[in-house]
Amino acid sequence: YVGGENNQRSLLTWSEKAAAEAEEVAAISCSGHGRAYVDGLVSEGQPVCECNDCYGGNDCSEFFHGCSADADSGDPVFFEPFWMQHATDSVVVTSGWHRMSYKYYKYVDSTTMSIELESYIRKLHSIAGNAITEGRYMVFGVGSTQLLSAAVYALSSENSSSPSNVLASIPFYPIYKDQTVLFNSENFQFEGDTNSWQSNNGTNNMDVVEFVTSPNNPDGELKKSVLGGKTIYDHAYLWPHFTPITGPSDHDLMLFTLSKLTGHGGTRFGWAIIKDKDIYEKFLNYIELADMGISKDTQLRVLKLLKVVVEGDGKPLFEFAYNKMRDRWDRLTTVFSKSTRFSIQQRHPLHCNFFNETRLPSPAYAWVKCEREDDDDCSAVLEAGKIIGRRGSRFSDKDRYTRLSLIKSQDDFELLLQRLTELVSLENGSIAKM
Amino acid sequence: YVGGENNQRSLLTWSEKAAAEAEEVAAISCSGHGRAYVDGLVSEGQPVCECNDCYGGNDCSEFFHGCSADADSGDPVFFEPFWMQHATDSVVVTSGWHRMSYKYYKYVDSTTMSIELESYIRKLHSIAGNAITEGRYMVFGVGSTQLLSAAVYALSSENSSSPSNVLASIPFYPIYKDQTVLFNSENFQFEGDTNSWQSNNGTNNMDVVEFVTSPNNPDGELKKSVLGGKTIYDHAYLWPHFTPITGPSDHDLMLFTLSKLTGHGGTRFGWAIIKDKDIYEKFLNYIELADMGISKDTQLRVLKLLKVVVEGDGKPLFEFAYNKMRDRWDRLTTVFSKSTRFSIQQRHPLHCNFFNETRLPSPAYAWVKCEREDDDDCSAVLEAGKIIGRRGSRFSDKDRYTRLSLIKSQDDFELLLQRLTELVSLENGSIAKM
Repeated sequence: YVGGENNQRSLLTWSEKAAAEAEEVAAISCSGHGRAYVDGLVSEGQPVCECNDCYGGNDCSEFFHGCSADADSGDPVFFEPFWMQHATDSVVVTSGWHRMSYKYYKYVDSTTMSIELESYIRKLHSIAGNAITEGRYMVFGVGSTQLLSAAVYALSSENSSSPSNVLASIPFYPIYKDQTVLFNSENFQFEGDTNSWQSNNGTNNMDVVEFVTSPNNPDGELKKSVLGGKTIYDHAYLWPHFTPITGPSDHDLMLFTLSKLTGHGGTRFGWAIIKDKDIYEKFLNYIELADMGISKDTQLRVLKLLKVVVEGDGKPLFEFAYNKMRDRWDRLTTVFSKSTRFSIQQRHPLHCNFFNETRLPSPAYAWVKCEREDDDDCSAVLEAGKIIGRRGSRFSDKDRYTRLSLIKSQDDFELLLQRLTELVSLENGSIAKM
Repeated sequence: YVGGENNQRSLLTWSEKAAAEAEEVAAISCSGHGRAYVDGLVSEGQPVCECNDCYGGNDCSEFFHGCSADADSGDPVFFEPFWMQHATDSVVVTSGWHRMSYKYYKYVDSTTMSIELESYIRKLHSIAGNAITEGRYMVFGVGSTQLLSAAVYALSSENSSSPSNVLASIPFYPIYKDQTVLFNSENFQFEGDTNSWQSNNGTNNMDVVEFVTSPNNPDGELKKSVLGGKTIYDHAYLWPHFTPITGPSDHDLMLFTLSKLTGHGGTRFGWAIIKDKDIYEKFLNYIELADMGISKDTQLRVLKLLKVVVEGDGKPLFEFAYNKMRDRWDRLTTVFSKSTRFSIQQRHPLHCNFFNETRLPSPAYAWVKCEREDDDDCSAVLEAGKIIGRRGSRFSDKDRYTRLSLIKSQDDFELLLQRLTELVSLENGSIAKM
């Protein structure tokens, strides 16, 4: 048997050098507080450690004591240990001549999308039980980021003399607005909050395209359409680790992203599930004309990752991620329970079909409210306590709110918890100091 | 020494299985008329051969005799043999936890772009001598396709009450128009041909954004700005294998793409070289808001490929590609020299600084003209002769012209040449048959 293994090894010819390099770089010690990468900055011929926030030195062993906890971005790095544990099944080896063509296959319609990958995505939704895909069309995008604007384009009335009205419910993800403003199209314009719109317009002007983010970013709420017109369901966070899956989502247009499923934010990949054929065709036309489709290298990597995700009917990945998030929420709520100055969103238990158990949601973000009347700039209050969040006004809400990211690295979370504990401990003894 | 090699081999742990799989798939024989891929369609647990056009059967050994030569798309697959020859240096091994973050580095501005990659691109231009990069900014895009619309956005007047006028010179690449129409922005509109515009407007309205494609797609001409306003230099084909490099291009905004440099069309990657800081910032904002940057997997692969490209000061790659293109042009001109019915574009020798020799250009496409008065639909004439080209009206020119792609696989080119030879041989003997 050992002989057999050696035989296989000796067959490797052109891929061995690169494989050895990748393993060598991965083995560089960064004290558990950083990583070296094959495409990293190089010093004296060696890739250098890239340290986590607040760590430094050649091997990232040095902690910067006065450092602020950065809980600003939604960088989903908390999945990293899972992928290190599944190294053998998740590594991708790409030959120099892999998929050079713009197209995958000659005899099918959707030539810039991998059929293999599409079938794994359908399998994944069936396992997770979070979306209906039977009889639906699928389009890939450069992250769900690109799909947001493709969706607005596809749903807007092209030949109308007046533009479609794009709306979302406060608090909402700022990119919806930013993209609509950036593209400044004659077909659509951003009109802000659904509730204000409804008060002002009633049901008079129903040429609306409504973003429904469920679970919501920033606050994790399960949302429904307010206006009942055309909707874009942004389901970036609709996975068992963030929210109980109560049943498959069954909307006309649903968006998902790899980033919040596996943690690969740097791999720009998302997908849309579309009921209507005309909308699908407009969608596909948008992606192909804007970009000529999604990088084949990216699709190959996503395929490899999803093959791991669907192993064991999704249990290993979703359990890893849920346990991580639950642990973080348990520790977070303990800290906030000692505070009257700061509160976080209420969470309500629901039955999760995937885990077959009633569970609390464990959202990607804490939506922090500063309760004292004077603390109307909550981000400033937190920053004084060395915590960097994302201010409420970025989500078109009051600055009395701040979003804290709970999905970054363990180092980031530990420091966040430490700074929060310090801040809350000041409430009784030393309010004057703040 | 052999012992040393074995030692290195035994060190491989998590990457060996994937490497062995990649080599196994690459070794599947498809008779030289197809390829099997690790993400290909699977039959009985084995990836199947994906055959070149006009070939079929399990191992692609079957030739379909009545098959038309497809010279429509600009799929740059003629580079494939080069990458097979450089397998060891061009293979990429990507760990499951590689670059999960949205960002590369913490302490620099351009956090979604690889600094290592950017430095190799600068080195490449310095070697090829085709563009000035010193003191210029750089932005990556999802192919140069995405950069086209980013460039129009960045150059358009944002706050003007009237939109900027986007123009190009006939014959021009259709995507310029298609994208501008698709985005239907209030900031810009497509106004067609520069020469017609100049006749109608003189120098009255100079809020223009002009695409200058040099060498031009479809006809390979070196072009200059007609209107002298704001310009986007599309330099997709400005490489020594397509045109003599007479000196470095030195324009305010220049676009390049991996696709026509290395043949990796499926790897959506392009870059812009930008003189002005404000334009650069608008550009970067566009890319980050539209997509949150370019996939890290793609950037890693491009880095690996460019490391091979700059080896030997670019000689191996550029000589391979130039020899291939020159051979194709030699054989093509021989066929067309026997025809009075069909002509192709004139080519003029120029001194190439890269090869240090006076050479004829060898453009990516033949721009075929049907000379007979009756043959005003040249694509139809060619199609009757079993040749599929791209009709002149796609480039806003007359249908008396057709573009034939010369950069596809060797099989595609051989069949194209055969069909052209058959068609031309009919001119003297058997005109009636056509």
